[in-house]
Amino acid sequence: MANPPVNYGVVLYPGFHALDVFGPLDILNLLALQRPLNLYLLSSSLEPVSTKPPATMKPSSTGPNSDFGEAIVPSHTFSAPPPELDVLLVPGGLGTRDEANTAPAMDFIKEVFPRLKYLITVCTGSALVARTGLLDGKRATTNKRAWGWATSQGPAVNWVPKARWVVDGNVWTSSGISAGIDAAYAFVADMYGEDVARGIADASEYTRCMDPEADPFAERWGVV
Amino acid sequence: MANPPVNYGVVLYPGFHALDVFGPLDILNLLALQRPLNLYLLSSSLEPVSTKPPATMKPSSTGPNSDFGEAIVPSHTFSAPPPELDVLLVPGGLGTRDEANTAPAMDFIKEVFPRLKYLITVCTGSALVARTGLLDGKRATTNKRAWGWATSQGPAVNWVPKARWVVDGNVWTSSGISAGIDAAYAFVADMYGEDVARGIADASEYTRCMDPEADPFAERWGVV
Repeated sequence: MANPPVNYGVVLYPGFHALDVFGPLDILNLLALQRPLNLYLLSSSLEPVSTKPPATMKPSSTGPNSDFGEAIVPSHTFSAPPPELDVLLVPGGLGTRDEANTAPAMDFIKEVFPRLKYLITVCTGSALVARTGLLDGKRATTNKRAWGWATSQGPAVNWVPKARWVVDGNVWTSSGISAGIDAAYAFVADMYGEDVARGIADASEYTRCMDPEADPFAERWGVV
Repeated sequence: MANPPVNYGVVLYPGFHALDVFGPLDILNLLALQRPLNLYLLSSSLEPVSTKPPATMKPSSTGPNSDFGEAIVPSHTFSAPPPELDVLLVPGGLGTRDEANTAPAMDFIKEVFPRLKYLITVCTGSALVARTGLLDGKRATTNKRAWGWATSQGPAVNWVPKARWVVDGNVWTSSGISAGIDAAYAFVADMYGEDVARGIADASEYTRCMDPEADPFAERWGVV
């Protein structure tokens, strides 16, 4: 590709799912050792953003009395984003279940989308984007266990049930959690070359799923 | 298992490798929704810890002019750790290449090890631990691309070349980066039951490598 992406952004909100972010970013962290890339981590404020769902959601994100989560430091706010963003990554997570919790992220995605070269979602990140209307009429996929809820967030989206990931124009959507890793390798292969993607996967000791239609989890979770 | 682990700690130092931490933690994040678990993120200070190698290492961790990395917020310092730690996870990463950079982590690991139920390393995390002498005489594995350097950090370790992960007593060591995910699933299966591990893998849409000796990357990187 002639001018592959240089500037990557990631949308963060309370209750994002860790691997949705760090699966793809780990690949890009390694790519950034080979070629100049910039990463921007965006959120409502510069306060660290936790994988724990917000306290206001607690009854609906039930669990035992665990204290377990990680917090990442944003580099930019949605209201003062970097001047250039080529790719925006939108993770899923329990935090997507509360529309108010993701409203600032949704507003930012809607506003920035026309200036992006690519939008990538992982897991229920596509449900969050679907709520903005940006996926209407597009082919997209999402988490298979959360299929019913996630697809209800975008009734006008052409949801693809059996897919590890789906590409429609400049929008890449992947299935649940780990699927983001395979989608990110496919994206890197497409943008920078298959040899680059293979090199990173070998260094990461990762055996890729390279077929976007190979999806045993559609059957596992009864998604037809 | 009668009293499976409850309190997990992770060692953080500048230049840790993101997926070494977030591969296993993502599994535990999901486990923590099912049963009470606590997570402690430990470092030299409470300042956020970046995946970027420290500036002092720059010439040896060469790359182009990228600005790409993520910073996590520690919950505890090595000098004031939580009262109980059942499991300690030690990631690898470029930061391990500088012994001074990991000295505080090494001191902490050496001090806390006798009180741990389990020690888990990912990638060159085992090289870091090997430098403390704690792996001497034990079977262990490490990153296959970095095999020569990593194994030189512990000449008295019984390094296993072809292994996705290795268990010796209460020490679990895994191969490079992504191998930590499969080792963590095996650990969860061992501690909490195979049904629990399978449930999390299905929810994560992850196809596990369940054979600790299945390691195509030993051959890929010429490790005999």
